[in-house]
Amino acid sequence: MPDCLFCQIVEGKIPAKKVYEDDDVVAFDDIQPQAPVHVLVIPKKHVATLNDLSPQDDAVAGKLFRVAAQLAKQRGIADRGWRATVNVNRDAHQLVFHVHLHLMGGRPFGWPPG
Amino acid sequence: MPDCLFCQIVEGKIPAKKVYEDDDVVAFDDIQPQAPVHVLVIPKKHVATLNDLSPQDDAVAGKLFRVAAQLAKQRGIADRGWRATVNVNRDAHQLVFHVHLHLMGGRPFGWPPG
Repeated sequence: MPDCLFCQIVEGKIPAKKVYEDDDVVAFDDIQPQAPVHVLVIPKKHVATLNDLSPQDDAVAGKLFRVAAQLAKQRGIADRGWRATVNVNRDAHQLVFHVHLHLMGGRPFGWPPG
Repeated sequence: MPDCLFCQIVEGKIPAKKVYEDDDVVAFDDIQPQAPVHVLVIPKKHVATLNDLSPQDDAVAGKLFRVAAQLAKQRGIADRGWRATVNVNRDAHQLVFHVHLHLMGGRPFGWPPG
């Protein structure tokens, strides 16, 4: 999607601090971090929101969790704990319409999550 | 896992208000709802935390998102918005050590998510 910020990051047209990349997934630091560790993990394929996932996307969508866990281990926060959050549409403050998982950790989190 | 609360819900040994079930996934209402819609979506397979996912789990882990989206559509909150949250270990308040996705919606959410 030419007008999608995250597709442009995937393609390297907009700079981002990438911390992980494979054939399906890219991860990069959030530019407005809300925790000591705050990384966005996204599918390379453009999917606007979780509402738009199809069964063919299941494996890559699940890989977002697994890559997040791998990054949490690398950053030393896996055992202490971390939170995975995906926002969908306005009520949840989705700002970029390309699915992204927020990996956040390095501090305690309250409940409810917003 | 015989001592796992959510495995016992999967097996029907402990009652829960199930709102979805297939071969891989079960969903049921959270008993301490933090939003007008608050459903837990879990894999039937016992996986303690996201840190413990293996590549073989990717498809089912991704299906958690898709089932959550399907339920959000059924409850009429998909377009307005909803938040998917998974807590890992102590810092994030994980209370039951069987992976569960919190689908929450029906109200606006703040940022950060806890």
